[in-house]
Amino acid sequence: MTEDAFLARLFAGLPPPPPGVVIAPGDDCAAIDLGGGRWLLLAVDQVVGDRHYRQHGPEPTPPELAGRKLLARNLSDIAAMGGVPTCCLVAGAFGPDCDDDWLRRFYQGIQDLAAEHGVAMIGGDLAVTPRDTVASLTILGEVGAGQALGRAGARPGDEFWVTGSFGDSFETGHHLTFQPRCAEGLWLGRSGRVHAMMDVSDGLLLDATRLCRSSGLALRLDAMAVPRRRPETTLAAALSAGEDYELILAVPAGEGEALRAAWPFATALTRVGTFQAGSPEVMDLSGRPLGAGGYDHFDVRHGGPP
Amino acid sequence: MTEDAFLARLFAGLPPPPPGVVIAPGDDCAAIDLGGGRWLLLAVDQVVGDRHYRQHGPEPTPPELAGRKLLARNLSDIAAMGGVPTCCLVAGAFGPDCDDDWLRRFYQGIQDLAAEHGVAMIGGDLAVTPRDTVASLTILGEVGAGQALGRAGARPGDEFWVTGSFGDSFETGHHLTFQPRCAEGLWLGRSGRVHAMMDVSDGLLLDATRLCRSSGLALRLDAMAVPRRRPETTLAAALSAGEDYELILAVPAGEGEALRAAWPFATALTRVGTFQAGSPEVMDLSGRPLGAGGYDHFDVRHGGPP
Repeated sequence: MTEDAFLARLFAGLPPPPPGVVIAPGDDCAAIDLGGGRWLLLAVDQVVGDRHYRQHGPEPTPPELAGRKLLARNLSDIAAMGGVPTCCLVAGAFGPDCDDDWLRRFYQGIQDLAAEHGVAMIGGDLAVTPRDTVASLTILGEVGAGQALGRAGARPGDEFWVTGSFGDSFETGHHLTFQPRCAEGLWLGRSGRVHAMMDVSDGLLLDATRLCRSSGLALRLDAMAVPRRRPETTLAAALSAGEDYELILAVPAGEGEALRAAWPFATALTRVGTFQAGSPEVMDLSGRPLGAGGYDHFDVRHGGPP
Repeated sequence: MTEDAFLARLFAGLPPPPPGVVIAPGDDCAAIDLGGGRWLLLAVDQVVGDRHYRQHGPEPTPPELAGRKLLARNLSDIAAMGGVPTCCLVAGAFGPDCDDDWLRRFYQGIQDLAAEHGVAMIGGDLAVTPRDTVASLTILGEVGAGQALGRAGARPGDEFWVTGSFGDSFETGHHLTFQPRCAEGLWLGRSGRVHAMMDVSDGLLLDATRLCRSSGLALRLDAMAVPRRRPETTLAAALSAGEDYELILAVPAGEGEALRAAWPFATALTRVGTFQAGSPEVMDLSGRPLGAGGYDHFDVRHGGPP
């Protein structure tokens, strides 16, 4: 069973969220109305040793980078809502091979990136496991009431834009060293020109398909226009390999070029498609379904290299 | 290294929390001032397969009870602050032996207890591990501004009271089926008669020592007065075995009996000591140090049965 299928079944069985919960499960973050024009954003994400980074083997990932990745993944979720990250809590369950030095360096990686983004570590829990290492981080953020950019707001005719480039994240180390698109996401949220936004962690095709499902639209994708991370990156890798941590967004028809003209970042901002009425899937320019592909972090059958 | 020592070093290296963070790491929950007289409470806790419950072996823990325990541990942290739980996020990293049925039952255990306490599951993440199963839950709660009961408020002469009974939690299954002291904690918080409170998860002696450290006081404990879970429970088990999930509290001198007279719960409320000026440790009635003992969930050298 895929993560999407499992979560859909899980959340279908839950009682409706209480009135203060203004964005419920299924988006990059949940949101709670704090009153006074403020929404609290919340998300949780994990890293698992030998899945999201190399715990063992001849070239283990430096623990600083494993810790950094844990926070960066969560920052990407706040960025995807157009919010500002504020605080985090970290729960670590460490295998017997994680000595004090490993732990110190792992937390240092979190702290250094947290300091860059003004994020305070306000709580946590430590445990040990028989063998594997798993750490989760819950991120808090803020956004103005009603200003969070969810996945459900795209409209027919909207332009489909993406930040940065795609593919070969594992091969290049991007999955450990990427800069979460916090400034870009905040700027896009405040631009007033974005209908929907999310981040891409499981592959462009899979995450764009999720955006299509949430918005109830089809997407016509100009796959060849998708920026690739390096010259040798294949189309398949750009569309499906995952761990890109870029933002994808829906911009009202005709407004994308003005958005790009005002764009103050070095990060690329590229139009790669158009939303249209239709069953929620991604098609090529000829209208042929491209499938969802992608890297499901939950479905073991996809495996995938850390 | 113990969890306390590691956390002390970790948090010593952090920048001071931002102004809105009114209770920082080191208490049962962190607290953030939301304005309007409301504080947001936050905590995270974990369960690890074959540590906090039996994942394998001839008598594995029913997954419902493993999931239930995950939420119950966190509810106990909110209760210890005198707060009301509101929402949670769950991050699960599951080993290859967790099939769809196991997962469904695990989440059902969380959901059933959540429904009892009016807690909404608003987010989560799913991952798979090579071998072990680890799940973390971040709990949110609320308390009136300035009304949270932390660990630092005990004063010399305060009476030391405890809810419920202690010891043999693993042997009796209490660690899976305990009722977190939510109603009791809320009532105590609102009583205006409690200076400090925390929950006991790592053993009465260890957690009482933590309360002593936070408040800068010694505690004279009437160890023989500590209620034991069952007739055969040893003194050592009652003081140190852990997983009790009871509340311990500091009540102003002379006010404890009035508190007990008004106490509306079936749960026992028992006075078992007195705080006094002195180095932060727990002593017996003769003034001899009892040590901290306890079950450190982090320090592998203590091991301890799930």
